[in-house]
Amino acid sequence: MKEIYLDNSATTQVFPEVCRLMSKIYEEDYGNPSSMHSKGIIAERYIKSAKDNLSKILKVNAKEILFTSCGTESDNMALIGCAHANIRRGKHLITTKIEHPAILNAMKQLEEEGFKVTYLGTDETGVISLEELKNAIQDDTILVSIMHVNNEIGSVQPIKEAGELIKSINKDIIFHVDAVQSFGKFVLHPKKMNIDLLSVSGHKIHGPKGIGFLYINEKIKIKPIIFGGGQQNGLRSGTENVAGIAGMSLAASMLYDNLEEDVKRLYELKKYFIEEVTKIEDVFVNGLPKAIINSDDSDDPVLLYGAPHVISVSVKDIRSEVMLHSLEESGVFVSAGSACSTHKRVPSATLSSIGLEPKLLESTIRFSLSVHTTKEDIDTAIEKMNEYIPMLRKYIRR
Amino acid sequence: MKEIYLDNSATTQVFPEVCRLMSKIYEEDYGNPSSMHSKGIIAERYIKSAKDNLSKILKVNAKEILFTSCGTESDNMALIGCAHANIRRGKHLITTKIEHPAILNAMKQLEEEGFKVTYLGTDETGVISLEELKNAIQDDTILVSIMHVNNEIGSVQPIKEAGELIKSINKDIIFHVDAVQSFGKFVLHPKKMNIDLLSVSGHKIHGPKGIGFLYINEKIKIKPIIFGGGQQNGLRSGTENVAGIAGMSLAASMLYDNLEEDVKRLYELKKYFIEEVTKIEDVFVNGLPKAIINSDDSDDPVLLYGAPHVISVSVKDIRSEVMLHSLEESGVFVSAGSACSTHKRVPSATLSSIGLEPKLLESTIRFSLSVHTTKEDIDTAIEKMNEYIPMLRKYIRR
Repeated sequence: MKEIYLDNSATTQVFPEVCRLMSKIYEEDYGNPSSMHSKGIIAERYIKSAKDNLSKILKVNAKEILFTSCGTESDNMALIGCAHANIRRGKHLITTKIEHPAILNAMKQLEEEGFKVTYLGTDETGVISLEELKNAIQDDTILVSIMHVNNEIGSVQPIKEAGELIKSINKDIIFHVDAVQSFGKFVLHPKKMNIDLLSVSGHKIHGPKGIGFLYINEKIKIKPIIFGGGQQNGLRSGTENVAGIAGMSLAASMLYDNLEEDVKRLYELKKYFIEEVTKIEDVFVNGLPKAIINSDDSDDPVLLYGAPHVISVSVKDIRSEVMLHSLEESGVFVSAGSACSTHKRVPSATLSSIGLEPKLLESTIRFSLSVHTTKEDIDTAIEKMNEYIPMLRKYIRR
Repeated sequence: MKEIYLDNSATTQVFPEVCRLMSKIYEEDYGNPSSMHSKGIIAERYIKSAKDNLSKILKVNAKEILFTSCGTESDNMALIGCAHANIRRGKHLITTKIEHPAILNAMKQLEEEGFKVTYLGTDETGVISLEELKNAIQDDTILVSIMHVNNEIGSVQPIKEAGELIKSINKDIIFHVDAVQSFGKFVLHPKKMNIDLLSVSGHKIHGPKGIGFLYINEKIKIKPIIFGGGQQNGLRSGTENVAGIAGMSLAASMLYDNLEEDVKRLYELKKYFIEEVTKIEDVFVNGLPKAIINSDDSDDPVLLYGAPHVISVSVKDIRSEVMLHSLEESGVFVSAGSACSTHKRVPSATLSSIGLEPKLLESTIRFSLSVHTTKEDIDTAIEKMNEYIPMLRKYIRR
C-alpha cells in the first residue's frame, strides 16, 4: 500500500540529498568545529557555509544566524533570552492566543518570573487585529512575538504590517516571528519586514530533527539560555551539530531554489482539496481567509487560502481519532489537531480562538502537504473520506 | 596518507552501523513521536527502545533517562534545573576547579542569580581530596557536581567514594556526575554509586553530534530549562531527535557490548604510548596517578593510568599549535588542550590546578584514543614525534 503522508506540519521526510550529505559528515567530516586541525576546520566550514546560505535566503548577515537544537529552543531563546537581556527597559510582552506551546509556555515561565504578557485574540479566520496590537503596546513593552503561519489551521498573520506598526510606535520594541511553519513556503526578509528575531526548525523543511536556527538582528540585546564552552559567540554553547546544520541548510536551499513553482502547485492542490472535501456532507474547512468566505476576486493566494500547505477539516459527528485511524487504514497519514503537544487531550486554543462550534472541536483533523504531495495523493485522500465518512456516521448514529 | 585520528575526546567518528540506522529513520521512519498514527508510533518506539537500552546499561529505570541536545545541555539542565527546583533547601553548590566549561559557566550563571559555589582544588594528579569535599559541605548545600573523567588529562575522580561521603553527611544533597568523558569507557551504575544525575553526550561515543542524555533519579526535584509542547513528561520540550536518540543508543550498546576487552586494549595502548613518548628528551606525561608516580605495584589500571583514552603530553620548548600542526602534516590529529572551549587562548584551569610549570602550559597537547585506535597508529604518532621534536627544537633554539 502506498503511503500518503499528509502530516507535514508535524514533521517531514528528510530529503535523500540531505541524508547523503549528513552521512558523509558523520563518517568522514566528523571533526569538532572547535578543533584546531584540518578536521576541525572542515567541520567549521560546513557551519560557515550554512550560515552564508541561510543568511542569503533571509537577506541578513551571516553572523545573525544562531543554530539551536530545535524550533522550541529557538522560540525559548528569543523570548527568554530577550526578556532577560532587556528587563531594564520594561517587563511587558505581547503575543497571541494561538501561538505554538513553545511560545505560550515560555511566556508562562516569564510570567512566573514577574513579566506581564498580553495575549491577542483572533477573528474567525485565525488572524489578529492590528488595532488590538496597537492598543496592547505599552510604554514598558519590550517584545512582541507573533507566529507567521499557524500550525493548526494555516492562518497567516500580517507580520509585515505588524512589524511596521510596532516600530512606528517604538522602534526599540523587539519583534519576534515564529516562522517554523512558514520558512520554506514564504519569502522572508526580516530586515525589510522589521523582524528582529525569527525562529526556524529543521525537521519541518525536510531536514533532520534536532536542529533549528534563530535569526537575531545584530543590534538587539539577547542573553544565552545554555552556558558552556562559548560556541557561537557565547550565545549557544555546546559542540555544534555539524551534520544537522549542514542538512538543514541544504534542505532550505532545495526548497528556496524552487519556491515559486512549488508554492504555486501547493496552492492549486489546496484549492482542489478544499473544493472536493467540502462537497462531502457536513464537512467544513476551518479558518479560511475572508477573501474566500466573501468570494472576493482577490488573486493573492494568501488572501484566498492562507498558507499553502495546512488544511483544517471538521467532520461533523466523527471524532478526530476515528477519522485519523480510518484514513491510516488506507495509508493516509493525517493529524488530529497539532502533533506538537504530545498526546494531550486539551481543546485547541487556536480552534477555540476562531470560534469553532464546540461539537466540532473534537471532530477536527489537519491535512498538511509538502513538495512531495501529488494530485493523486489528494484524490486518494478525498476518495477515502467519501468512502469512510458515510460509513462511520452510520455506525455512530446507530 | 592514512588519517590517524587521536582527538577522540573532542569528538568521534560515527559508527557506520549508527549512520545506517539514522539514515533509515531520516528517510523511512521519519514520523513525529507525538503523532497518533503509526508513523508516530514507530518513531516513539525508537525512543522507548533507546530509553530501555540506556537504562539497562546504567541499571536504572527507563523513565529516568531524559534526552537532551548535547552534553552541555545535560550539564545545564542538571545544575540550573536542580538549583531552581531546590532553592528553598539552600543556595550552596559545590564543584571542582577542573570541570568542563558547561559546568563552570552554568555555575557562574547561578552565582549571578545569587547561589554560592565552592570550587574544590586537585592534587598534582588532577584528583580532588575527599577531605576537602567533606569540609566544603554546609547545611545549605543542595548539590555537588563532580566530573568523572577530566577531558584534558584523563584524571579519574573517586565518584563512588564522593557519593558515599555526600550521602553520609546529608542524603538530600543531590550528586551530579558529568560522565561525558567516561560513559562508554567505565561501568557506571548510578544507583549503586549514589549518583542522582549523570550527563552523557552522543558524539563522544561514536554517536552523532546534537544529542545527549541526562540520567535523573526519579526521587529528585528538577525543573525544565526549555519550555513548550511538554515532550518527555514536560521536562524537555521540542520534537525529539529520534534519529539522534536511536543512534546514540546503538553506539552505547556497541561500546558496552565489548567494554571489558576494548578498555583492556586501550590501557595497553596507553601504557605503551606513555613508555615510548617519555623516552623522548624533555617530554612529560601530565597528571599521571600517584600509583605510577610512586611505582606502586597496583594492578588497577585506573590507579596506574587514570582513564584509558586520554594522555596529556608536554613537549618542552615547543608550542602546542606548532606540535599539533606538525603532527597533522603526517595525518596525525591531536588537540592543543581541550577542543571544547572554542579557539580561546586562556590558560587551562586543569593544567594550572595540577601545578604544571608555567612554561609547559602552552606546550601541552592531548592525545585521545578510541576503539578504532591501533598499535600501528601509536607507533606512527611516536615515530613522528621522535622525528619532529628535535627538528623543531633546533629551529626554535636557533
